[in-house]
Amino acid sequence: MPEPPAVTMSATLAADEALARRRRAGEHVVSLASGEIGLPVLPGLRERLGAAADRNAYGPVAGSAGLRTAAAGYWGRRSLPTDPDQVVCGPGSKPLLFALLLAVGGDVVIPAPSWVSYAAQARLTGAEPLAVPTPPGEGGVPDPDALRAAVAKARAAGRDPRCVVVTVPDNPTGTIPSRGTVRRLAEAARDLDLVVVSDEIYTDLVFDPADRAHSPALEAPERTVVTTGLSKNLALGGWRIGVARLPDGPLGRKLGTRLTGIASQIWSSTPAPVQEAAAWAFAEPPEVVGYAAAGRRLHQAVARAVARRFTDTGALLAPVRATCYLYPDFEPLREPLADKWGVRDGDALTELLADRYGIGLLPGSAFGDDPNALRVRAATGRLYGETRTERQAALDAPEPLRLPWIRAALERIDAALGDLAR
Amino acid sequence: MPEPPAVTMSATLAADEALARRRRAGEHVVSLASGEIGLPVLPGLRERLGAAADRNAYGPVAGSAGLRTAAAGYWGRRSLPTDPDQVVCGPGSKPLLFALLLAVGGDVVIPAPSWVSYAAQARLTGAEPLAVPTPPGEGGVPDPDALRAAVAKARAAGRDPRCVVVTVPDNPTGTIPSRGTVRRLAEAARDLDLVVVSDEIYTDLVFDPADRAHSPALEAPERTVVTTGLSKNLALGGWRIGVARLPDGPLGRKLGTRLTGIASQIWSSTPAPVQEAAAWAFAEPPEVVGYAAAGRRLHQAVARAVARRFTDTGALLAPVRATCYLYPDFEPLREPLADKWGVRDGDALTELLADRYGIGLLPGSAFGDDPNALRVRAATGRLYGETRTERQAALDAPEPLRLPWIRAALERIDAALGDLAR
Repeated sequence: MPEPPAVTMSATLAADEALARRRRAGEHVVSLASGEIGLPVLPGLRERLGAAADRNAYGPVAGSAGLRTAAAGYWGRRSLPTDPDQVVCGPGSKPLLFALLLAVGGDVVIPAPSWVSYAAQARLTGAEPLAVPTPPGEGGVPDPDALRAAVAKARAAGRDPRCVVVTVPDNPTGTIPSRGTVRRLAEAARDLDLVVVSDEIYTDLVFDPADRAHSPALEAPERTVVTTGLSKNLALGGWRIGVARLPDGPLGRKLGTRLTGIASQIWSSTPAPVQEAAAWAFAEPPEVVGYAAAGRRLHQAVARAVARRFTDTGALLAPVRATCYLYPDFEPLREPLADKWGVRDGDALTELLADRYGIGLLPGSAFGDDPNALRVRAATGRLYGETRTERQAALDAPEPLRLPWIRAALERIDAALGDLAR
Repeated sequence: MPEPPAVTMSATLAADEALARRRRAGEHVVSLASGEIGLPVLPGLRERLGAAADRNAYGPVAGSAGLRTAAAGYWGRRSLPTDPDQVVCGPGSKPLLFALLLAVGGDVVIPAPSWVSYAAQARLTGAEPLAVPTPPGEGGVPDPDALRAAVAKARAAGRDPRCVVVTVPDNPTGTIPSRGTVRRLAEAARDLDLVVVSDEIYTDLVFDPADRAHSPALEAPERTVVTTGLSKNLALGGWRIGVARLPDGPLGRKLGTRLTGIASQIWSSTPAPVQEAAAWAFAEPPEVVGYAAAGRRLHQAVARAVARRFTDTGALLAPVRATCYLYPDFEPLREPLADKWGVRDGDALTELLADRYGIGLLPGSAFGDDPNALRVRAATGRLYGETRTERQAALDAPEPLRLPWIRAALERIDAALGDLAR
């Protein structure tokens, strides 16, 4: 007799809807809240979706053979050799993550801070999330020693953690855990007999090619499930497609059977025309590789420019090395913020920036961070333009910061932060 | 600390995959097991999906304004005036049904027999389904008096049923509950304070226009959620789109808030290009109405022809009035089946027909029916052809039973049933 879980709307999607409402009301809002990548669809993908419009069979729950083979190849090119049978597709990596939590069962360890939906999904499965802080400057992975302590304590209290979720590279901080931290996380997971669910949807958005994110699947291959999708590297959020890579071996096979059983009862299969286009994308022809690289360059330029505005104001910020997200901490400005604005936490700071300056951010509390902290998350994915023409220009620009609409947004952020901290 | 639920693969989707495997192995199988409607995509839908391929924003969790307005109009034309704000869209009506069970919470009453996924979904939410038999010849709705007794007994035992799921018209039986039964069901739900979740995905597949299925939303509008989709009337199963219509009033608003919150955390939104095409379909231009009518005529001709084969053999069968499903009961043949074949239940009967005759059916047990009964479900949706040309010809044919591939399938069924019962 489960009580309906107290689940609130995803903070990032709620921010998208609020932004749309305010714009319809004629307000000029700078959105740094959305998780959406506002870039145009690659023409080759558009054509393939149209050409696959006659695909109306449910098809295999786990995804078409073509899609699974292509996704296996994608991982193979990232040092994770994969058999197509290890791949399960879903309408986004979000439903796959939810179904994985159901498939593993038990309680779930998540990093603090972490993406808005992990904790909510854990609650929807009837579990209580156990939030474990990340090491400084290495978001996305619970500190391995703190993880050991938290799991031991939870087990002593009769709880049953069976799974740890990590985000590599990280949302909300745009940082990447070091290879050593990932190795120690994997060792802890093995010692504690935890399944590792590694959300790697930002792995193609690491700015420096020498800086590649290190997957826990390289360190604990027998127990790590990797998820990814095309929402970030190819800006296909609204198309809804994701894939999970199960471990090779007995645990992987057991999880795979459970996962496809659960998927078959919740969503049947993934839209067949989208699978067709995604299979082409996961095979990574030159157009796709070029698009992802252009997006990465654009994120790097704009995210770092926005980061500079925050650090210039006096906020603390770990260097952004991936994604289009940053996570400034206004702690050094605590006194002036309290004195001048009555702002004492991230929620109030977010409210002030929205109401007074029309700049939408998300407070750290949305990511499970300490609500008293003065941390906020900024995302640059919606600064690239409002029209397809502007967005394409941003993607193509050798110097995107010189485009008038991006410059205007940066100036607006500049002015607001300057006024805030003056 | 939830245990991973013991969820098996959806029986209908498993049947699809088994069929594909056997065909790849060169076997010639007649599939009466799938829930898929094997018909080609309407050209207008194909075009609109392709034209909407540039839609890559997440968009509102509940669905685009255009889609919600169109779905509201669709229901308005079916005696259910609807405000677009009452509509929530999802990647299939299946995930909407799952999220609704989560949103309502508590235990769930389902009809016996009923669609394979209701019970599995209830278990995934942590509830135990309470199966209540349907009245004879009126599938899809628990007998209202038996519902009252079952809920009273469950509550006395400390359980907490809050919701009853109905299927109008019915899968697996192809029957339609009478207006009086629906009214009594609605009264019982009101007296027991149950939410009614009415799965009406087959409402456009009622053969006789004078025979329209009566929605519980007409009898208990304050507490009935209606779901539907385009998988059956427009054969778009593989596109994955469904809509829910929430009640007007306070309960509807409360459920709507919960439902969109849950949707935002499980699946974000419904593929945007599919929403665009679906908005056109829900507006029901003449092409769409014509396609649905042609599908209905084809289902009627073939389902009734298959039904005749079963009744000629001596099986009992309530007249099929909607869908492309039928649910014969071989009870009158219990003795010969046991003597000649050692068959004593629906599972064994299904196995015999598959292994000896290459005819795929599903046993009543897959629908939660008494496993000792000799009932099976047959679906005709995969008899219309293997190629797009064949399927289009079946849709267009004034006399589809004369098409060679349909005639061959019917003869094969004839021969198998004849041999079985001889």
